[in-house]
Amino acid sequence: MRQNPERRRALLDAAIDVLAEEGARGLTFRAVDTRAGVPKGTASNYFANRAELLLQAGAHVHVRLAPTEEFMARFLGAAPSREQTRLGMRDLLRRVEADRNGYLALLELRLEANRHPGIREELTRTIRDTLEENVRHHLEGGFPGDRGTVVTLYLAMTGLFVEHLTLPDVLGDDDPDALVDRMVRAIVPEGPDFPGPSLP
Amino acid sequence: MRQNPERRRALLDAAIDVLAEEGARGLTFRAVDTRAGVPKGTASNYFANRAELLLQAGAHVHVRLAPTEEFMARFLGAAPSREQTRLGMRDLLRRVEADRNGYLALLELRLEANRHPGIREELTRTIRDTLEENVRHHLEGGFPGDRGTVVTLYLAMTGLFVEHLTLPDVLGDDDPDALVDRMVRAIVPEGPDFPGPSLP
Repeated sequence: MRQNPERRRALLDAAIDVLAEEGARGLTFRAVDTRAGVPKGTASNYFANRAELLLQAGAHVHVRLAPTEEFMARFLGAAPSREQTRLGMRDLLRRVEADRNGYLALLELRLEANRHPGIREELTRTIRDTLEENVRHHLEGGFPGDRGTVVTLYLAMTGLFVEHLTLPDVLGDDDPDALVDRMVRAIVPEGPDFPGPSLP
Repeated sequence: MRQNPERRRALLDAAIDVLAEEGARGLTFRAVDTRAGVPKGTASNYFANRAELLLQAGAHVHVRLAPTEEFMARFLGAAPSREQTRLGMRDLLRRVEADRNGYLALLELRLEANRHPGIREELTRTIRDTLEENVRHHLEGGFPGDRGTVVTLYLAMTGLFVEHLTLPDVLGDDDPDALVDRMVRAIVPEGPDFPGPSLP
């Protein structure tokens, strides 16, 4: 069958919206076709089965949440420091806030993974690869801290996203931006190269 | 109608299992009756509607996850310190690990809250109350740090629970106990009363 990459992407975007808004159980080929406004039977031509659709939707969220090339160019052009990490985390918060359905869909997939070993295995690989890439990037880039720094910061950011996106009023007056700053300050060491005012 | 507290609790336990194993969409009065092994129609005699059942299940998870009286007595008997906070967080990790379905049900409820404003409002209250109680307990108990310390630690622990319970292999060799220790060390200040070896 002929596949159109644009249509494929539109189907994955529709699947993400269905996941976020109806839950994993609401995700059927039919619901995706309806959401994408395409003829009945289209989604089933693009994905071999429901698990395949779920997994590709999960991978597609990671594509949607990736930083822009412009941001990465600026980011990599600056010297590695705790301040750079803070700016990176602030940008990640912006991206997640701008793609609420994407992040909620990922949470739905995490819960669905608990019920389907095949999905669990694949989704573990996707998320683990992303985490390991972050670790590598941090260490090879000369950012302050070690592997544990990156894993701990990743978990703290995950907790912030879950709270902020599912029940935003729990944090109430605790500003998410200020919480990001605080997490980075607490978890990432100042680093030997940090041009802070406390150095001689 | 006559209500039996033990049967009420059994219905809430069943609702938590259904939430964790079938997802929020699977939670019907019928599914709860079946799961609890009680006659059809029982759950609908105990809960006015599905939203009520969901919310009471959410509150019941918090009851199930509460520390034992024995632990609290030991905990409150010791001097407040970062080390005590670490032991408290280690105990919380044990409780969450021992009640996997309880924590997964809470995540399902968070996602359901996104779809139902009434559930969102109530669940926000439940979780906010618990967080504020932790803040109060920490500050009034003389533990080191401020409000931001407790909120940041709460979010980091939330991220750890979400990762560890939904996709345990993402963390792989990163031991959850060691991650708890690291989070506490990074986020909670050593405190003026800490009898550490670095003090004169």
